[in-house]
Amino acid sequence: MTDKAPDPTRRNERSRQAILAAAIELIKEVGYARVSVEAIAARAGVGKQTIYRWWPSKAAVVFDAFLALNPAAPGELPDTGDIVADLRLVLHATVAEFNDPDFEAAYRALNTDVQDDPALGERMREQVLRPTLATVKRRLAAAQEAGQVRRDVDLDVVVEVLYGPFYYRWLLRTGELTTGYADDVLTLFVRALSG
Amino acid sequence: MTDKAPDPTRRNERSRQAILAAAIELIKEVGYARVSVEAIAARAGVGKQTIYRWWPSKAAVVFDAFLALNPAAPGELPDTGDIVADLRLVLHATVAEFNDPDFEAAYRALNTDVQDDPALGERMREQVLRPTLATVKRRLAAAQEAGQVRRDVDLDVVVEVLYGPFYYRWLLRTGELTTGYADDVLTLFVRALSG
Repeated sequence: MTDKAPDPTRRNERSRQAILAAAIELIKEVGYARVSVEAIAARAGVGKQTIYRWWPSKAAVVFDAFLALNPAAPGELPDTGDIVADLRLVLHATVAEFNDPDFEAAYRALNTDVQDDPALGERMREQVLRPTLATVKRRLAAAQEAGQVRRDVDLDVVVEVLYGPFYYRWLLRTGELTTGYADDVLTLFVRALSG
Repeated sequence: MTDKAPDPTRRNERSRQAILAAAIELIKEVGYARVSVEAIAARAGVGKQTIYRWWPSKAAVVFDAFLALNPAAPGELPDTGDIVADLRLVLHATVAEFNDPDFEAAYRALNTDVQDDPALGERMREQVLRPTLATVKRRLAAAQEAGQVRRDVDLDVVVEVLYGPFYYRWLLRTGELTTGYADDVLTLFVRALSG
């Protein structure tokens, strides 16, 4: 199909960007719970139906807005040759992200909304979780090559053992998610993988 | 205050038990999402207002219904002298519980409902999570005494490192929660604590 209508396409893309930007602005201003699809539409200068044409729910819009802020896969982990230092950097960034006052409530809400929305859950896994876990897996595989991590471990399990405690403490609020906690988890993690 | 009206008290307790039993029955029959406070009331033979007098939400009723099924703290872990075997028993039970087809959806829903209901979240922590974690901590402390677990670890972190991966995989559905996964997590966990 040849595209004979470039203008609508561009206008659609402009509307889409305006909607995603409006979602982020409103979350910062009033908090996720008080953001509505109506408010996003009004801020973006589009009709509510424009949003519902492209997204089934507020959660789906917000998910895409976050993805636009943190595009796709997180690239590669640093590889300084020191697996502990490299993981610490990433885990401290995770702690900061989970505690970001602008977005914490929205991250939490997305984590609950995906429970009732299988399609959104699959997007979360495909576009956020699995790429993140795969990045850590690649760094760990390099550490295996370098003889810093034992080879008789299933890296698919290993990466969930690393991230699970963060998710648990953060979502269940059993304690503060601090860099000190990250360091303690990392110490145990590294010991489990050594030798 | 002396109790001059024993009958209403007993009747209240009977109603309460009927409501909790009705909640469990309905969850098994139609699934958590389709259970309403109205349906619980009808099944229990009480008015909807009776439920709302005692509980603020469906989630709060269901939480108490689960507590009634699995009363309070989980007692003590077995102590056969073999910390790995004892933990394996508990973790396999956790896997079975999380996968219980009658209750999986309700457990998931409670885990999301607590995000929007701080009072319910605090009850979840006080009456379920912390007692569970404390039980494992006591078993690990005994293993420390027995020289099976190193002493330079913070057991509050350690227990979240143990349960975090289960919660992560189960709630985010990154993979199947199996006894094989439990065994892999346990192997890593034990290695982190040895030496």
